[in-house]
Amino acid sequence: MQPLAPGSTIGILGGGQLGRMLAQAAARLGFDVAILEREADSPAARVAAQLIEGAYDDEAALVRLAKAADVVTYEFENVPAGSVDILTDHGVDVAPGALALAVAQDRVAEKTFLNARGAPTVAFAEAATPREAVDAVTRIGAPALMKTRREGYDGKGQKWVEHAADAAAVFEALGGVPVIVEAPADFVRELSVIAARGRDGAIAVYPLGENHHEGGILRRTVAPAQVTPALADQAERIARQVLDGLDYVGVIGIELFELPDGRLLVNEIAPRVHNTGHWTQDGCEVDQFEQHIRAVAGWPLGPTRATARVEMLNLLGEDADAWAKLAAEPETRVHLYGKRDAKPGRKMGHVNRVRAL
Amino acid sequence: MQPLAPGSTIGILGGGQLGRMLAQAAARLGFDVAILEREADSPAARVAAQLIEGAYDDEAALVRLAKAADVVTYEFENVPAGSVDILTDHGVDVAPGALALAVAQDRVAEKTFLNARGAPTVAFAEAATPREAVDAVTRIGAPALMKTRREGYDGKGQKWVEHAADAAAVFEALGGVPVIVEAPADFVRELSVIAARGRDGAIAVYPLGENHHEGGILRRTVAPAQVTPALADQAERIARQVLDGLDYVGVIGIELFELPDGRLLVNEIAPRVHNTGHWTQDGCEVDQFEQHIRAVAGWPLGPTRATARVEMLNLLGEDADAWAKLAAEPETRVHLYGKRDAKPGRKMGHVNRVRAL
Repeated sequence: MQPLAPGSTIGILGGGQLGRMLAQAAARLGFDVAILEREADSPAARVAAQLIEGAYDDEAALVRLAKAADVVTYEFENVPAGSVDILTDHGVDVAPGALALAVAQDRVAEKTFLNARGAPTVAFAEAATPREAVDAVTRIGAPALMKTRREGYDGKGQKWVEHAADAAAVFEALGGVPVIVEAPADFVRELSVIAARGRDGAIAVYPLGENHHEGGILRRTVAPAQVTPALADQAERIARQVLDGLDYVGVIGIELFELPDGRLLVNEIAPRVHNTGHWTQDGCEVDQFEQHIRAVAGWPLGPTRATARVEMLNLLGEDADAWAKLAAEPETRVHLYGKRDAKPGRKMGHVNRVRAL
Repeated sequence: MQPLAPGSTIGILGGGQLGRMLAQAAARLGFDVAILEREADSPAARVAAQLIEGAYDDEAALVRLAKAADVVTYEFENVPAGSVDILTDHGVDVAPGALALAVAQDRVAEKTFLNARGAPTVAFAEAATPREAVDAVTRIGAPALMKTRREGYDGKGQKWVEHAADAAAVFEALGGVPVIVEAPADFVRELSVIAARGRDGAIAVYPLGENHHEGGILRRTVAPAQVTPALADQAERIARQVLDGLDYVGVIGIELFELPDGRLLVNEIAPRVHNTGHWTQDGCEVDQFEQHIRAVAGWPLGPTRATARVEMLNLLGEDADAWAKLAAEPETRVHLYGKRDAKPGRKMGHVNRVRAL
């Protein structure tokens, strides 16, 4: 693909904060943006040239998007495969591609792919019936984490199984849908690596972030994380294996567990810009949003080295009410998403607290 | 004024690149943006929540803007005084205010104000008839620069008068409208200072930029400019005098001439974000666009120290065709305005080439 000329239109599936920040990055580079989103009023559509109102599987809306856009990307990994087919059938490229979506949408396919590429994960087993669930937990050993194979985010769609005997009940409690059973990871730290691959196969990797979750939701990322060169190399090797293995185009977020012995396990991958990469907005010359747009537009990737040390804090629900206090802190860069309704736990914005390296 | 809460709407008069970059900064802070602009398709409206189509003196459009917006600002200094009156009559505050506009719209009022505040300028005289034009040039001494008192930008609306005897003819050539006659400034460098004043009277001043014009149009700004502490102090003193004197709210651009003896003269002031401040996007933690939004929204001002050394290059007309080459330079941050038509000399975008301090 020739690099997409400024003035071209980038289509984005999804009108949330990630779509919003992608749209802003695209506009900075001279692109127009078309958002496909169910809601008439959304954070992303309010900063985009065009809104196409429709569900992500609404064929008419997808066809309109294919006609409006020169390339399509997305802000969330649950894009239906059929939607990608409709877009590509109507002549528009979707990036990241179908393989990345298929792998990211199914926790079993994801871990199978990762292990096949030499990227280690916790031990896991799949189950589609209560009996298989009991077998799986027996094989992995209790306590184990049972998760639906598909959907689920921010800690939703998963439960601990304390004893193998409880496995059938937990399976039913999760909806009786196909699940994965995972061995617990005895980790000392949660890290993540944000990386990008261009259309030419070039790869750029950001410094690692150290992440702190509460109740399954990301609260805080500190970046660049304090790590040994060996650990950084290990993370970069994993990122390269994953990106090349998926013939990937765009930014990816890879969540990692650091084990006591210094090995990294991959927790999960997100084929999109990632909450743990928000620090790059104020800690790098080219942030993950511009990087993603550069990649999907066929532009060369930008630099990824850190220019500052950043503590990124998510503003959840009423945290965002503290905007006036936060705006008055000289070291604090404020990013708010324009969401109308501050439900508890809802991501309303984030701040990056910036210090010299 | 209480600081404006996120979710409020900032109205912007003007749909060009300055409006666009202001709109993007406002959105980052969680504000919605309404653009008032004559053209249905404009760079700013493509990144804003709302477009109100109309001329800047269209009363119905202004009333709609006043109803939509919680505060109104603008991207150009030629906002008619009557438009400000309509907006304020309909209950919405306009910042910067009427005094700043009045001073910036009339070169005689501007220089009179500056001198009264102790901010030196070249010697000048006003003229409204051919005979007064001859008198004025005789008083100032030829060669002198004759400029229309109102309108005029990027070198338009001004001519040199080589001999006093030519003054009447030049006056007619400029349209027979009231003019100012200025003594030439024997300067060694063109500098500018970008500064901001908040609603609380707090002032924040960015490091100086060194500017290079070609054919009356800015080509290049290098910032922070290499200056002595004494020169920086002089510039800051001028900025404070101007901002306090205008009871100003927002970002201002002040163009300066550096004389061989180290004194600074003010060339002109622009009551808005300024082309010579674009370097702050990649050279400061809070750029001039966010700073302006912070000020007009009643937020505290952000830090203005430089975090990098930047060379800003304007992309005029077909310069922007080099986007692919520019995008491939690791040190170059690309900013494109989404303008459809690359007329010669038209500002299509800019790049910031970034180096460590």
